Amino acid sequence: MSTARETLGIGMVGHAFMGAVHSHAWRSVHRFFDPALVPRLAVLGGRDETRAKAAAQRFGWADVETDWRALIARDDVDLVDICTPGDSHAEIAIAALEAGKHVLCEKPLANSVAEAEAMAEAARRARERGVRAMVAFNYRRVPALAHARNLVARGALGEIRHVRSVYLQDWLSDAQAPMTWRLKREHAGSGALGDLGAHIVDAAQFVTGEHITGVSGLTNTFVRQRPSGSGRDEVTVDDCALFLARLSSGAVASFEATRYALGRKNAMRLEVNGSKASLAFDFESMNELQFYDGEGTEAGFRRILVTEPEHPYVGVWWPPGHLLGYEHTFTHEVADLLDAIAAGTDPQPGFDDGLRVQRVLDAVERSAAEEARWTAVEESR
Amino acid sequence: MSTARETLGIGMVGHAFMGAVHSHAWRSVHRFFDPALVPRLAVLGGRDETRAKAAAQRFGWADVETDWRALIARDDVDLVDICTPGDSHAEIAIAALEAGKHVLCEKPLANSVAEAEAMAEAARRARERGVRAMVAFNYRRVPALAHARNLVARGALGEIRHVRSVYLQDWLSDAQAPMTWRLKREHAGSGALGDLGAHIVDAAQFVTGEHITGVSGLTNTFVRQRPSGSGRDEVTVDDCALFLARLSSGAVASFEATRYALGRKNAMRLEVNGSKASLAFDFESMNELQFYDGEGTEAGFRRILVTEPEHPYVGVWWPPGHLLGYEHTFTHEVADLLDAIAAGTDPQPGFDDGLRVQRVLDAVERSAAEEARWTAVEESR
Amino acid sequence: MSTARETLGIGMVGHAFMGAVHSHAWRSVHRFFDPALVPRLAVLGGRDETRAKAAAQRFGWADVETDWRALIARDDVDLVDICTPGDSHAEIAIAALEAGKHVLCEKPLANSVAEAEAMAEAARRARERGVRAMVAFNYRRVPALAHARNLVARGALGEIRHVRSVYLQDWLSDAQAPMTWRLKREHAGSGALGDLGAHIVDAAQFVTGEHITGVSGLTNTFVRQRPSGSGRDEVTVDDCALFLARLSSGAVASFEATRYALGRKNAMRLEVNGSKASLAFDFESMNELQFYDGEGTEAGFRRILVTEPEHPYVGVWWPPGHLLGYEHTFTHEVADLLDAIAAGTDPQPGFDDGLRVQRVLDAVERSAAEEARWTAVEESR
Amino acid sequence: MSTARETLGIGMVGHAFMGAVHSHAWRSVHRFFDPALVPRLAVLGGRDETRAKAAAQRFGWADVETDWRALIARDDVDLVDICTPGDSHAEIAIAALEAGKHVLCEKPLANSVAEAEAMAEAARRARERGVRAMVAFNYRRVPALAHARNLVARGALGEIRHVRSVYLQDWLSDAQAPMTWRLKREHAGSGALGDLGAHIVDAAQFVTGEHITGVSGLTNTFVRQRPSGSGRDEVTVDDCALFLARLSSGAVASFEATRYALGRKNAMRLEVNGSKASLAFDFESMNELQFYDGEGTEAGFRRILVTEPEHPYVGVWWPPGHLLGYEHTFTHEVADLLDAIAAGTDPQPGFDDGLRVQRVLDAVERSAAEEARWTAVEESR
Repeated sequence: MSTARETLGIGMVGHAFMGAVHSHAWRSVHRFFDPALVPRLAVLGGRDETRAKAAAQRFGWADVETDWRALIARDDVDLVDICTPGDSHAEIAIAALEAGKHVLCEKPLANSVAEAEAMAEAARRARERGVRAMVAFNYRRVPALAHARNLVARGALGEIRHVRSVYLQDWLSDAQAPMTWRLKREHAGSGALGDLGAHIVDAAQFVTGEHITGVSGLTNTFVRQRPSGSGRDEVTVDDCALFLARLSSGAVASFEATRYALGRKNAMRLEVNGSKASLAFDFESMNELQFYDGEGTEAGFRRILVTEPEHPYVGVWWPPGHLLGYEHTFTHEVADLLDAIAAGTDPQPGFDDGLRVQRVLDAVERSAAEEARWTAVEESR
Repeated sequence: MSTARETLGIGMVGHAFMGAVHSHAWRSVHRFFDPALVPRLAVLGGRDETRAKAAAQRFGWADVETDWRALIARDDVDLVDICTPGDSHAEIAIAALEAGKHVLCEKPLANSVAEAEAMAEAARRARERGVRAMVAFNYRRVPALAHARNLVARGALGEIRHVRSVYLQDWLSDAQAPMTWRLKREHAGSGALGDLGAHIVDAAQFVTGEHITGVSGLTNTFVRQRPSGSGRDEVTVDDCALFLARLSSGAVASFEATRYALGRKNAMRLEVNGSKASLAFDFESMNELQFYDGEGTEAGFRRILVTEPEHPYVGVWWPPGHLLGYEHTFTHEVADLLDAIAAGTDPQPGFDDGLRVQRVLDAVERSAAEEARWTAVEESR
Repeated sequence: MSTARETLGIGMVGHAFMGAVHSHAWRSVHRFFDPALVPRLAVLGGRDETRAKAAAQRFGWADVETDWRALIARDDVDLVDICTPGDSHAEIAIAALEAGKHVLCEKPLANSVAEAEAMAEAARRARERGVRAMVAFNYRRVPALAHARNLVARGALGEIRHVRSVYLQDWLSDAQAPMTWRLKREHAGSGALGDLGAHIVDAAQFVTGEHITGVSGLTNTFVRQRPSGSGRDEVTVDDCALFLARLSSGAVASFEATRYALGRKNAMRLEVNGSKASLAFDFESMNELQFYDGEGTEAGFRRILVTEPEHPYVGVWWPPGHLLGYEHTFTHEVADLLDAIAAGTDPQPGFDDGLRVQRVLDAVERSAAEEARWTAVEESR
Repeated sequence: MSTARETLGIGMVGHAFMGAVHSHAWRSVHRFFDPALVPRLAVLGGRDETRAKAAAQRFGWADVETDWRALIARDDVDLVDICTPGDSHAEIAIAALEAGKHVLCEKPLANSVAEAEAMAEAARRARERGVRAMVAFNYRRVPALAHARNLVARGALGEIRHVRSVYLQDWLSDAQAPMTWRLKREHAGSGALGDLGAHIVDAAQFVTGEHITGVSGLTNTFVRQRPSGSGRDEVTVDDCALFLARLSSGAVASFEATRYALGRKNAMRLEVNGSKASLAFDFESMNELQFYDGEGTEAGFRRILVTEPEHPYVGVWWPPGHLLGYEHTFTHEVADLLDAIAAGTDPQPGFDDGLRVQRVLDAVERSAAEEARWTAVEESR
């Protein structure tokens, strides 16, 4: 029976946090959804063979490669899933696309606009050959945010006036928390801005259907050195980034990304105020969407539990009120990706969307370097 | 490498809602936890071969059996997982235990005290031969409730005074919702009482570590006939059950189970007030525990996000603030079960716990039949 | 100009907590509302002249009397406001009504059904002479609950299925909290039942427009002796009362009143589930009403901020979102009372409503004394 | 008896919304607090004699004046309370101070920095003669925010890293809402910035004990013309203002003030993240303070009900859990003012604080006029 559906061989590079959730998604997607292609967990890529083999066994991959170029070259790999730090995204993604392999790339797309442009260009060329590229802004597949997008798209909010979005974590709040690659510019590109800010920029653009046209930003590094081995090492990225923005429609917006908001664990929040309705979301209550539309004495923000069968992605899961967890944003993501590949259409968000986010982040950094000077976001082609 | 860990062959009977979540748990548990035994999804049991085969492929089972007796008899089945309606639990569970197969049985343990007693007796006999039995009160493995149990167990609440617990759903609120087996006494045993009430009785006893000693109950059936095929059929179970109770320590308690609380989708709630602290839980926010301990001008109910690595079960999952979903209560359940089997200890909750819940439900029904007369709960041995 | 409106002379007996809020209401009502009669704070009654005079100056009363009979007899007193413990309500109220003075009486109306019947009878006789009597169930004048009543009355909820109401406080949670008159049966009549339970019984009957027809109750006293002076004194009332109930329409209900719910300060809560909509209220968020009506993918409990000019009582106050406090439930109460007196109509709730609540409390006590036996609530005439 | 305490004659100019709440505060303060001076509501000032007389009767003032200069000159006026639009604050306040009358002036202190400087200078001169001046930032007297200030002041938060504050209303969300003086620059000075932004700037500086040193701002006017009489009139102020800021300690901050956040009625919110603890406040739940301090597995934001007798201002009011309303922020304000006058000390916030806020608002406007250019806030002397 399993021969009835075609399979797609997956090669995944990287096996840390993102590797774990992506593996779960690849293993589980066809157990709940009916994707047109069934994933095969073919090869896991990792530089250290022992650790890669342990991870492959743990996560259910059939084989390992220690060289990502070898992984790309394998016949049993149809799609390359890139779960490495940002500094290697461009090289791996471009090589995979040129080799005719579909690509799913973790966010942020790249560590610089130049890299992101090269990747977007590679994706455009690949598309002509039927090869697909997707960037893993998984928050688009939170059912509540997908539902929010639908509400805006059908005009329920009217004219958009305000967007306010924050992504608050606190894991660096302790000044003695140790150094990690995420705090080094050469690996991570930026700090909270690229890691967290990228998510809320994409989410805001996705939900509103608008583009950020200009920004005024400031960044700060609260703790400049952190314990590393027996000594201390320099933090070379931002600890937080705040910026004001204007959207293509004339709406105004504010954004904040930080790892120092003590008590906020993963507060990725988005509020949109329109002329007819408002909506609000907080990832710490990810199964809920707050929605307000003006209706006299019964008006009030509604706590919609986005767990009804009619809500996006929810129908395949559990009965109403039985919550979904974080990892299924990835399950939903790969379900859509598999369908797009089978249908020969472009998955969303594509590398152009990733580039668009990168341009915003870049504008924020340039603005912050010039005392919050207003900085236009370069238009993508 | 996978030879390093021993495996346990699973045979699961039933493949509806519970079958789907149990399958996910069996498939996933060793991807996150390190259970001493790795489950093999050996056989799926279902009366209709076509449907069973489709489910087996969907859920990842190697083979199917249409007769549960054949399933029990197979050499590749070490554990029988019972996901059928309550009227078949006793027969299957007892046969499996007698055949030397471990058993995981969905709740409520049975449709009557007599059945539950026979099952508990079978479990006691099986235990002597190293065969284990567990009843699937999955809410014990919600990290927030496991954490609540730990707080009570270490004395943080002091003397328990009050328990109030409700389990509110609304899927029968519409009087035109169709007939299902859950509304027929011969299959379901009871209505909201056994389906939902069983969960909150077990959760209250688990979290407080106390037993319910007596009850005063009332039940009601709001809609007595429902559409069935082209006609209408009698509802023969309760639509809701409410009862007052006393606990072994002298605390007082109230319980309510209903499928008519419009707007409440899966509001399984529990509040406990002690002399030193209080706690409150709502499954619609299942990653949160509200906790109050008296501390002067800063006292207040805290919204603990139970997603820290130190919280029960959470360490293997995602970073703080990345929520877990409903299905992992089952993943945690089978992780503990696998470890207990390997260690040769009794998994919790055992059939005695299931019997204890059954006795409470039975006392509620008898009380309700006699105008809420106070009814003692028979002591288990 | 102030001669344009007639005044009504108020004589208030008692000047503790309730005296303070009633005084504020009498002083303030015409500063915001336009009652047909303007209150004059004529006489404050208190047994200790020194303390009564201090209170009169503090609260703005023109004169004092140490004998409530003298207060009733004064020509400048048109209305007697009874703010004493429950054991003196009947005597004072009946004397005042017989003297032709309108009466506002604190709740619970009396300490026994017999007293309440006598009071209701006195009120009926007085009514024939145009003399009015009101019982001070102030929660009816919380704008959110008045709005809830309006929603039910206009049919928004459909058929009522469930009522669940609790009134949770924690000021006795500490076993060393000292003895007060509220813990002595001879003064308070009962404990949490009469003090807190009376409020939720009235509120549930008010909001649903139904009567409680029968109950099954239990009461408990957790701490049987408390510090009093240098020794200890017996607590002779209940510390908590829980009861199940049926309403005239066939709905089922549960109630709980306690002073031992650690962390709950004044959680007077009411939830009503109907066939078309549900509502929920918590006095700790007294300016909010939660409302759910079924509307597909946007359905959810709405947090209505009941601070719009169209909401009951709110129009005279502040702009939307500027909250009202506890004491204005009394301001609203006396505004309605003054208008009823001027219009020659019966204020709501009258002594018959107070009697009805008393009959429910009595049934709960009798049920609790007989092991939760189902006990019908005697019908009022 | 009332001769025991000295009185202070109050003359209030203006009798709209602010006049109503101030009147309530002056009438009520000594009914709850024990201020060293008891206010006499001597004179109400209003240009239209008929309307002023009606307001005086409504609010309880003894007399009226149609010319504020005459009001200041009266012997029975010891304190002038300025409740007029911002364009007249400077003239009235300076005249009153020069006449030796204490002044309470509504916020924002003035419509320009120049006016505010003149007022602050007048206040400094008056102080030398024992004459006091206060600006009515009433949110400082919300018990929850006063408690927040105390927590920061005693070091509970550690080093401050983040402040985020918004003041969201929605009364202009409807593009057809009519023109008011609040939308004209000549009267209001600015729009949401001065009306709402002033409050959150003061609150942030008050709670943190720090100053804003620089800003980057943008403002927007969504609806440029509004109905006025039979035609339409130009809106000449901002509809919203957003700005980033740095505080004197190095913390970073963001602010937003708008009247277009549909569904947010009076959401004056403030969150502060420190290295040891965080706090959060929302005026729509004004009796609550959210507080987080790091404490292992029980850590979580606590909902402190700021209604305990030990909380600031609360002891004179009702039992715990009985909420206070908006207007008592003013009652608390005048209680402190009366005590400061009697004690011969400076009330807080003084005109210097008002000037400091004005400088921030001015910097935001200048920044917004230059494309969000970073703009230092001029230091006050």
